[in-house]
Amino acid sequence: MSHDDTVPVGPPDARQTPRFAGPDTFARLPRMSDVPSASVALVGIPFDAGVSYRPGARFGPGGIRAGSKLLRPYHPFLDVEPWNVHQVVDAGDIDCNPFDIPAAVGAVERAATELLGQVDRIITLGGDHTMSLPLLRAHAAKHGPISLVHFDAHLDTWDTYFDMPYTHGTPFRRAVEEGVLALGTSAHVGTRGPLYSTGDMEQDRDLGFATVTTMEVAERGVGDAIDRVLERVGDRPVYLSVDIDVLDPAHAPGTGTPEPGGLTTRELQQILRGLAGNATIVGADVMEVAPAYDHAELTTIAAANVAYEFLGLFAG
Amino acid sequence: MSHDDTVPVGPPDARQTPRFAGPDTFARLPRMSDVPSASVALVGIPFDAGVSYRPGARFGPGGIRAGSKLLRPYHPFLDVEPWNVHQVVDAGDIDCNPFDIPAAVGAVERAATELLGQVDRIITLGGDHTMSLPLLRAHAAKHGPISLVHFDAHLDTWDTYFDMPYTHGTPFRRAVEEGVLALGTSAHVGTRGPLYSTGDMEQDRDLGFATVTTMEVAERGVGDAIDRVLERVGDRPVYLSVDIDVLDPAHAPGTGTPEPGGLTTRELQQILRGLAGNATIVGADVMEVAPAYDHAELTTIAAANVAYEFLGLFAG
Amino acid sequence: MSHDDTVPVGPPDARQTPRFAGPDTFARLPRMSDVPSASVALVGIPFDAGVSYRPGARFGPGGIRAGSKLLRPYHPFLDVEPWNVHQVVDAGDIDCNPFDIPAAVGAVERAATELLGQVDRIITLGGDHTMSLPLLRAHAAKHGPISLVHFDAHLDTWDTYFDMPYTHGTPFRRAVEEGVLALGTSAHVGTRGPLYSTGDMEQDRDLGFATVTTMEVAERGVGDAIDRVLERVGDRPVYLSVDIDVLDPAHAPGTGTPEPGGLTTRELQQILRGLAGNATIVGADVMEVAPAYDHAELTTIAAANVAYEFLGLFAG
Amino acid sequence: MSHDDTVPVGPPDARQTPRFAGPDTFARLPRMSDVPSASVALVGIPFDAGVSYRPGARFGPGGIRAGSKLLRPYHPFLDVEPWNVHQVVDAGDIDCNPFDIPAAVGAVERAATELLGQVDRIITLGGDHTMSLPLLRAHAAKHGPISLVHFDAHLDTWDTYFDMPYTHGTPFRRAVEEGVLALGTSAHVGTRGPLYSTGDMEQDRDLGFATVTTMEVAERGVGDAIDRVLERVGDRPVYLSVDIDVLDPAHAPGTGTPEPGGLTTRELQQILRGLAGNATIVGADVMEVAPAYDHAELTTIAAANVAYEFLGLFAG
Amino acid sequence: MSHDDTVPVGPPDARQTPRFAGPDTFARLPRMSDVPSASVALVGIPFDAGVSYRPGARFGPGGIRAGSKLLRPYHPFLDVEPWNVHQVVDAGDIDCNPFDIPAAVGAVERAATELLGQVDRIITLGGDHTMSLPLLRAHAAKHGPISLVHFDAHLDTWDTYFDMPYTHGTPFRRAVEEGVLALGTSAHVGTRGPLYSTGDMEQDRDLGFATVTTMEVAERGVGDAIDRVLERVGDRPVYLSVDIDVLDPAHAPGTGTPEPGGLTTRELQQILRGLAGNATIVGADVMEVAPAYDHAELTTIAAANVAYEFLGLFAG
Amino acid sequence: MSHDDTVPVGPPDARQTPRFAGPDTFARLPRMSDVPSASVALVGIPFDAGVSYRPGARFGPGGIRAGSKLLRPYHPFLDVEPWNVHQVVDAGDIDCNPFDIPAAVGAVERAATELLGQVDRIITLGGDHTMSLPLLRAHAAKHGPISLVHFDAHLDTWDTYFDMPYTHGTPFRRAVEEGVLALGTSAHVGTRGPLYSTGDMEQDRDLGFATVTTMEVAERGVGDAIDRVLERVGDRPVYLSVDIDVLDPAHAPGTGTPEPGGLTTRELQQILRGLAGNATIVGADVMEVAPAYDHAELTTIAAANVAYEFLGLFAG
Repeated sequence: MSHDDTVPVGPPDARQTPRFAGPDTFARLPRMSDVPSASVALVGIPFDAGVSYRPGARFGPGGIRAGSKLLRPYHPFLDVEPWNVHQVVDAGDIDCNPFDIPAAVGAVERAATELLGQVDRIITLGGDHTMSLPLLRAHAAKHGPISLVHFDAHLDTWDTYFDMPYTHGTPFRRAVEEGVLALGTSAHVGTRGPLYSTGDMEQDRDLGFATVTTMEVAERGVGDAIDRVLERVGDRPVYLSVDIDVLDPAHAPGTGTPEPGGLTTRELQQILRGLAGNATIVGADVMEVAPAYDHAELTTIAAANVAYEFLGLFAG
Repeated sequence: MSHDDTVPVGPPDARQTPRFAGPDTFARLPRMSDVPSASVALVGIPFDAGVSYRPGARFGPGGIRAGSKLLRPYHPFLDVEPWNVHQVVDAGDIDCNPFDIPAAVGAVERAATELLGQVDRIITLGGDHTMSLPLLRAHAAKHGPISLVHFDAHLDTWDTYFDMPYTHGTPFRRAVEEGVLALGTSAHVGTRGPLYSTGDMEQDRDLGFATVTTMEVAERGVGDAIDRVLERVGDRPVYLSVDIDVLDPAHAPGTGTPEPGGLTTRELQQILRGLAGNATIVGADVMEVAPAYDHAELTTIAAANVAYEFLGLFAG
Repeated sequence: MSHDDTVPVGPPDARQTPRFAGPDTFARLPRMSDVPSASVALVGIPFDAGVSYRPGARFGPGGIRAGSKLLRPYHPFLDVEPWNVHQVVDAGDIDCNPFDIPAAVGAVERAATELLGQVDRIITLGGDHTMSLPLLRAHAAKHGPISLVHFDAHLDTWDTYFDMPYTHGTPFRRAVEEGVLALGTSAHVGTRGPLYSTGDMEQDRDLGFATVTTMEVAERGVGDAIDRVLERVGDRPVYLSVDIDVLDPAHAPGTGTPEPGGLTTRELQQILRGLAGNATIVGADVMEVAPAYDHAELTTIAAANVAYEFLGLFAG
Repeated sequence: MSHDDTVPVGPPDARQTPRFAGPDTFARLPRMSDVPSASVALVGIPFDAGVSYRPGARFGPGGIRAGSKLLRPYHPFLDVEPWNVHQVVDAGDIDCNPFDIPAAVGAVERAATELLGQVDRIITLGGDHTMSLPLLRAHAAKHGPISLVHFDAHLDTWDTYFDMPYTHGTPFRRAVEEGVLALGTSAHVGTRGPLYSTGDMEQDRDLGFATVTTMEVAERGVGDAIDRVLERVGDRPVYLSVDIDVLDPAHAPGTGTPEPGGLTTRELQQILRGLAGNATIVGADVMEVAPAYDHAELTTIAAANVAYEFLGLFAG
Repeated sequence: MSHDDTVPVGPPDARQTPRFAGPDTFARLPRMSDVPSASVALVGIPFDAGVSYRPGARFGPGGIRAGSKLLRPYHPFLDVEPWNVHQVVDAGDIDCNPFDIPAAVGAVERAATELLGQVDRIITLGGDHTMSLPLLRAHAAKHGPISLVHFDAHLDTWDTYFDMPYTHGTPFRRAVEEGVLALGTSAHVGTRGPLYSTGDMEQDRDLGFATVTTMEVAERGVGDAIDRVLERVGDRPVYLSVDIDVLDPAHAPGTGTPEPGGLTTRELQQILRGLAGNATIVGADVMEVAPAYDHAELTTIAAANVAYEFLGLFAG
Repeated sequence: MSHDDTVPVGPPDARQTPRFAGPDTFARLPRMSDVPSASVALVGIPFDAGVSYRPGARFGPGGIRAGSKLLRPYHPFLDVEPWNVHQVVDAGDIDCNPFDIPAAVGAVERAATELLGQVDRIITLGGDHTMSLPLLRAHAAKHGPISLVHFDAHLDTWDTYFDMPYTHGTPFRRAVEEGVLALGTSAHVGTRGPLYSTGDMEQDRDLGFATVTTMEVAERGVGDAIDRVLERVGDRPVYLSVDIDVLDPAHAPGTGTPEPGGLTTRELQQILRGLAGNATIVGADVMEVAPAYDHAELTTIAAANVAYEFLGLFAG
């Protein structure tokens, strides 16, 4: 079967097979090994050795898959059927060493690179934000320097924690230093909360990021946020990285470093949908989902829906 | 005592009897059997055999009653005292077979019909949305074809699940087919989330529903939503059906099929209050409250306050 | 590969692949479709339409699989490696109609019968206890009338609920009536809690069951319980059915009808291990796991370990 | 109707009316106002102003009632039908001032005295242990000095906290001082945990209490505990007071001052059942149930079953 | 060391000392006893004897401290480093009698007065709202009659509960009666939910309060709320009292009397930040945090961030 | 003040200062910096980078301190006042790098060595079991090779995970290899659960450990366990290491790798108390407490009581 000339394999029909039965893949989609080829792969990174506060994102991929069971085939706002227009699969999890961050970073880079050789685009389910660095490396190796749209309460452009260069607070400084990101074409969305010092914002700007804070979203609306992001990235290849803590803790308690004053799930949906047709999105991740702090799957369902928005953008 | 010529019996004064003591009725109001007659009855339907995903709404009525203990006598925004202007009672629960959906649908229709012979209006505490069908039948038998204002993340106008015509995803298609709803005078509010196919919206429109999505509420505001609903129902008899999942999961985690991107409790209050004086409301329900997934009574308190808004509308 | 002449396929090594990564099968074992043949299959029944109180066992199979990730290959007390001596697989879930109990009972009987044609023995992960009836039917069709060792707080030999013959409180009366159980060779273990009337015990005895109550376990010890069970079943083919509520609610809160005064997980382990080598066990299930009421995977881990004891008994 | 010459009114049949529907009384029994007379009344005291650590027992009575829904009519171990041999009712809650302990103690004494004029025996659902003092006063006024069997992790015979004589740590010293307890005929069961000083035990003995610690239960068995209690109380009128924290926190997390190393629910059942036929029990309470700290109704179901044991003892 | 001429002592650097290690003070700041003098002190009042519904605010101060560990030194929206411009300390908790409200009110007044003699301003972490009365007394003794900006779902200007003048529903009526508040210069923000009677609002106005309801915030925006508050307080000394239930229960479940339809944490941040530079704030508290009802530190983190906003206002 | 010639400083009197107020040290004891010298220090290790499954033990020390607030001064079973016979202090937490296990192991060894130079004995609150290795090194440096009594569901003598020598599953193999443990004088207590292979037990025996499984405790009683442990360690210096997962998950859900069939808190108390006067205990730890998986402080209170038993043993 090919995604070019046949009907893609989708999940079982939930009106005949209960959603609470059957495969534990994302949205109950086929496993990568069950189809001959695929356009889009979802892949998990069960890793949290890079977190500075509440751990638990190692259970994020499994949690997001469990939270994805309610997803249905048609996205009415984007008017697409994300897994009917091309083959979407669940590629399982990337094995990585839970005790050795540099080893794990390397493993993820290799696995993502290999996967990008097999499919057009991947959506990563995390897992802590450390891993967006090797993911960006793999994407830059394929597409050249990338523009990043980074949804997060935090900047994640700090230098080191405990003298460690690879942590969940530092991936995007590393990415800039390594030339993985196209200079001056990236943006943070949803920034809020206290910082270490007055210099944090300045250094971040020096690294080439624009910032759309939640205060600005509150005051100017999501349309302004969309415009600023689109203006920033232009027509370059764009990678979307969503730290689930961009959402307010009320919407996403299951994460490691929650900050009050965040986006609602609705605002995040609005902004993501605002990118449809206006940006060349080559990859995406949704990270920092820590189910041990979740309640009633609030966070994992929110994260699964973010991945569904990615699928919608990829299918458009 | 009659609700026409005497002072209605209300709850004990919470400044003399603690709210955490005393009767476990809704808002600690009298039981129906404790007063000679009543204008408005709250009644529970502890039933969830019709749900397709997370069960537990069978405990909804009890949960909503527990969540109603903080309600006080005066509604400042509608400027009414909902249980002082006429007699409001708790009529207890409708017994229904937990193992046989058609039997239970029949039992609810009979019980609701009987209750509507005794009081002017009833407010139902659910229980799964399957039961809005027999409730609508009973109301249509009294008032003729009804206009429905349906607050829900989902359309609930699908045809069958597992070949079953009576489930929580199908009541309003049945109601249209049976002539219980007045054609072309009903509306969904709060619709969002993925659908089964591109045809879902079309079929729904063919069944005569207008739709106010949460994206539209976000973009155009609640005033627009109120206007469109009022325009739709005109001066016909209106039934309000609130699936608690119309609220965002952050506001109502205790439900069976949560969808991110929902209304806040404040927006729902605004829309319900916007109907005051502008619509002829003959009945109402608040459904799909599943306490096992709730936290700190978030959902049951929200549902109790929805019922309180109904009481305010009935008292105006 | 065949389980006769080659090394069985087991889970990935947890000292190289994290337990929190990888396949979501039971104990991370291979799927049935991934190996040419198998001796033992674990299969889920995500169904709870037959429950009389707290629902949620439809999520039991998924929960037990998640709770099984910590299982390791060697059972030191039985001195066996349960999945290294023959091929063990996860056969996924049996689809069954969540809205129609008789239809679902039929589907499970057909699926179990088919599966028993492919493997030697199956271990079922439930799902409500209604389904032990079709499971027993399928086993009796293969092995002739069965002796049941039934671990449960309740007798489950009532006649009907709400005039329904197939519910989670009635499977074993039906099984006796249908001749599926060998008369007078079955036993309840862990019985406790209030009953409907003085006649319940008498009727149960008339149906041919012996009873080992938790009071008796407390007073006489687990050795006596083992002896009485073994004496009861003799050398007939034995089916083990564990309602997880045989455990005290402190050990298994995640179930539908908890009763204080139950067994500890250690006592249940002792009794199950006491059967090793002394009974001809042809099938087994662990039922009534309702994750929505669980905490920190207490119940799902306990249930996964019960299934592991079954695997140990099968491997011995 | 009288409980002498007619059939008592019991709960609705749970095989026809779901347990999760209907009245929110204890075990779904009739309200006191619904029958002409009664032998036994259950009454709640929603009060917790006397607690020294985790509050929340004000919600205990409601919680225990919710936890009592699974109770069935026949107690097989005592071979009695607790509510079929005489009329048992739920008398609701005693109103008491949540802000003024002495006022509340007075209110409970008056209400309990009045209730003991209407029924033979009462079972109190608490509420904090402060209130066992006014309950004992009311019982002593009816029966003369009482022998207390006090199940608790703590002695509750301290003198004052913050100079306050009436708290949940002091009721039984007050009761001795007031002559409400018969000197030298009372016993603590389940004592454990650290004390304030070496003098605590001595003072307690001087007040006339014997003590059965959990260490002794562990080493000598429940039979020894029963013997020592029965020997202590002889044929005097006995009041049973169960602080739910006598149970291990694993069995009863929902309480204010948990102590590891407690009784199992099974051990408590054994000891209570050991009193049947051997002691003249005139009253009983189960206190200190704090649902906010409970999980999956572990504690409230345990407390409801303790009250059921009381009902069994009263019916024997 | 003095806060005038030396560098203030701050928390350990979280990039060298993990946030989850080290001191359990607010924001891991020094204890008052560890520095020679201080400008601002945070102090806890672990007290909840004055609550009318869900208790537990006695654990509020400890909970808020735990929730404050993620706070960092720089407030980018106010462009200040709250604990680097002057010395901020944690002064521990005020001891107060948990069983005697008037005694506790007196103890808090004395302790706050003493503390205000040692530092310029205090931020109180509560604890129930009863204690804002003695706090206001202490502030009025230092600054003369105060203007109150009171963020709360409720008015807290009722007269008595159970004839008690000092409860969490009555502090601001007492404060007006005592002349502690400057007449006609105070405002409630966030008011919503049902009231006792039509007279409540009138009496509140007669006591000199203006009210900004959440409906008004929804309809007119936060800018209007800020303007009305600033206009009300003018250039008088202002005390900010935040009952955490001003937030929607989705944002702050861990409180005693939750009301749907509240502010988001972002709106509260906007309003508080809108006061910067425009009001003379002399003191502040954040009250009614009840961790037993919290989830994943949603409420305690929100409250800690409110206190951080206070620190930002004080540092500006 | 010296612990030799003056009265030790203890916690504030809980009958005058509420337990829920005041210092957040263990048992509200003085900080090490608040007294001139001390005999016993409790110290936290907030570290969990070495865990293989559920993380979160980094919050263990804080959790155990919070769970220790109910501890009182007199241990009636050992008849000692643990902090009145010599000075006991809380030494705070050891800083260690959360991203680099070898660095953190080194930091703990240095800090423990330094602390053992200042006090006679330390009790460590963990934190994951990796850190028992540097703790044992520090103790062996002071006392020579140590006998270990290791309470744990698991052996923790595996060689490597992911090729890493320092993890929470490997400390005691390293300790044997390094000569830190006296050969053939150590014992595991509470061992249970599946192993990796038949060789695990053999290798463990070769490393010089005896094993007391929970099956043996169940069959032979705690007295036998005590005898075997005492016989094993003789009169050598003993270190007690309690992995909280030695308790059954019902008693200690808040841990990373729970195994059903564990000890009760009462059994653990019995065994620890059985060592009193019979062994020369030079140090102790209680590890693997992960509060994110705890409920109602079940686990943290249990762990705090384990530390209290250690204090009792040290004071005897």
